[in-house]
Amino acid sequence: MAIKITGTGSYIPSKIEKNEDFYNHKFLNADGSEINSPNEVIVEKFKAITGIEERRYIKKELVNSDIAFFASQKAIENAKIDKESIDYIIVAHNYGDIKYNTQQSDTIPSIASRVKHLLKIENPKCVAYDILFGCPGWIEGVIQAKAFISSGLAKRCLVIGAETLSRVIDPHDRDSMIYSDGAGAVIVEDTKEEGGILAHETATFALDEAHYIHFGETYNPEISDQRRYIKMYGRKIYEFALTNVPKALKMCLNKSGKDISDIKKILIHQANEKMDEAIVQRFYRLHKMKMPKGIMPMSINLLGNSSVATVPTLYDMILNGQLEGQEINKGDVIMFASVGAGMNINAIMYQV
Amino acid sequence: MAIKITGTGSYIPSKIEKNEDFYNHKFLNADGSEINSPNEVIVEKFKAITGIEERRYIKKELVNSDIAFFASQKAIENAKIDKESIDYIIVAHNYGDIKYNTQQSDTIPSIASRVKHLLKIENPKCVAYDILFGCPGWIEGVIQAKAFISSGLAKRCLVIGAETLSRVIDPHDRDSMIYSDGAGAVIVEDTKEEGGILAHETATFALDEAHYIHFGETYNPEISDQRRYIKMYGRKIYEFALTNVPKALKMCLNKSGKDISDIKKILIHQANEKMDEAIVQRFYRLHKMKMPKGIMPMSINLLGNSSVATVPTLYDMILNGQLEGQEINKGDVIMFASVGAGMNINAIMYQV
Repeated sequence: MAIKITGTGSYIPSKIEKNEDFYNHKFLNADGSEINSPNEVIVEKFKAITGIEERRYIKKELVNSDIAFFASQKAIENAKIDKESIDYIIVAHNYGDIKYNTQQSDTIPSIASRVKHLLKIENPKCVAYDILFGCPGWIEGVIQAKAFISSGLAKRCLVIGAETLSRVIDPHDRDSMIYSDGAGAVIVEDTKEEGGILAHETATFALDEAHYIHFGETYNPEISDQRRYIKMYGRKIYEFALTNVPKALKMCLNKSGKDISDIKKILIHQANEKMDEAIVQRFYRLHKMKMPKGIMPMSINLLGNSSVATVPTLYDMILNGQLEGQEINKGDVIMFASVGAGMNINAIMYQV
Repeated sequence: MAIKITGTGSYIPSKIEKNEDFYNHKFLNADGSEINSPNEVIVEKFKAITGIEERRYIKKELVNSDIAFFASQKAIENAKIDKESIDYIIVAHNYGDIKYNTQQSDTIPSIASRVKHLLKIENPKCVAYDILFGCPGWIEGVIQAKAFISSGLAKRCLVIGAETLSRVIDPHDRDSMIYSDGAGAVIVEDTKEEGGILAHETATFALDEAHYIHFGETYNPEISDQRRYIKMYGRKIYEFALTNVPKALKMCLNKSGKDISDIKKILIHQANEKMDEAIVQRFYRLHKMKMPKGIMPMSINLLGNSSVATVPTLYDMILNGQLEGQEINKGDVIMFASVGAGMNINAIMYQV
């Protein structure tokens, strides 16, 4: 028995927001003070660190559950399954549905119920729920699907990561350039094949770290409404991630019984290219190895950080030959990994 | 091996909102038209149907994660466990943290991460996540805890239901009198005792029913902001529940191998007393029996509908002798059941 991903799908929003589109923003420091650089310099520095050149936003008329549905349709089609045979619909997100130009998150009914509704699934035994777990939510959803399958509760699960961060960004915060929208979905099921999920690892650091990523007011002191936006302490997150993620990846690898040289690709959540490189370099250093070239496929330059959607979207793109110079083949051992709000870290060792 | 609840705790907010406190409200129909009855009559009719005399609201300075934390502390103390031995913190809610007099749901970090932070739990292997599943979220959290324990992922889980519906109610909607705030928590763990979770059943009806409970604008046509509130189609929910809940309870009972005469108590989610009575009556009628007196302990008269918190709070109150004329003893077979947004239905057959 192997618990495997038998179908993938993703939705990449059509609206491209380029770095140049931020030239007219009034960026401010966290304390509301002016930044003593022209926007061109701020944006160039941002690109050098994060690797982000452009990101995607959904159209005004869409909400998160719509794009979760689009990605799901493709995953179901790709897996060639009957939608009525799905036992669980698990949607990872963090902000629910936020309509354009409004500020409230709508999570009643759950995004999973909305997806089930849009997919027109009749079977009431198909249980639809949402998981909130920061950016690592999609990987955690896959781990939960595995637990349900292992314990006999399910045979086939649809696991979706969908987020619309464009609806919660402060235009006066430079970090707003990181965030993007997107959705990725997979079918996870019990198969008679080899491989699949070999091991997984999850950790929640909340003692000092709980509020490293949080909801806060605009940096613009002239605006006095109570509206809040996604905010982060970038430096703290960077240090936290470099200290803890490589160790978590090592634990996951050890559990799997595989050697580090078996790993063909590491698909890691992307919020900052330099940070991801430093994490993966450290992971290899823990094994006295140099990071192999091309081991870490990146989509951040064109897609930004789409939270829970980043990893499943990346996987879907590579399988479909949409990421230049990257491929994943049957039998390959790969690793999925993520770090984000919570602060949560997780990883899965997976054989395709 | 038995997966059992080894500790319970609840938090009942101190602010009592009586039915009379609604006399000065301007209640309107869904289409914005005036209701041709004085408020005293509206409130009296409301009480006759729902059984609600008063409900509880949290203080202005609190948010949902605070009361989730309060209930958790008590459950941990009651179970006499080391908090560092908890493998999962699962928080069921629907609206996250909403500060008083604001409208945004704050779910970054997750409520579970906040609870872990407030409990000062260090162990990073304690995984903290939120589940959104409408009012049946707490029961579903217990079912997920069971799956994690069965599949070897966990030994001990903290499962919390916490909600502050007072922060999402439209003062012009009569249904706003239903909603309440509260939190209930339990420790679920692997034990060497007998009994525990005997069977469970879950269903999601989303084809026609997804939006029976939803987020909608105020009934007051003079207010033109975009703010939205919890809204429901009461009549449709009533019919849906009466058709589907008794059948789900029967399926759960059948799976458990117990006879209907073994059931000592049914702890059902409470949104409407008349509806709950009709559901349980139909459940017994499916077994050619009359509903036994006192089988369905009620707290709705004083606590209203506190969503995910209702069932764990009720269980905690009965175990602590706080519900007059009701008791649950070691070895008793009971049923937990819920119906709510999604539309979701679930039930657990449980031996104390």
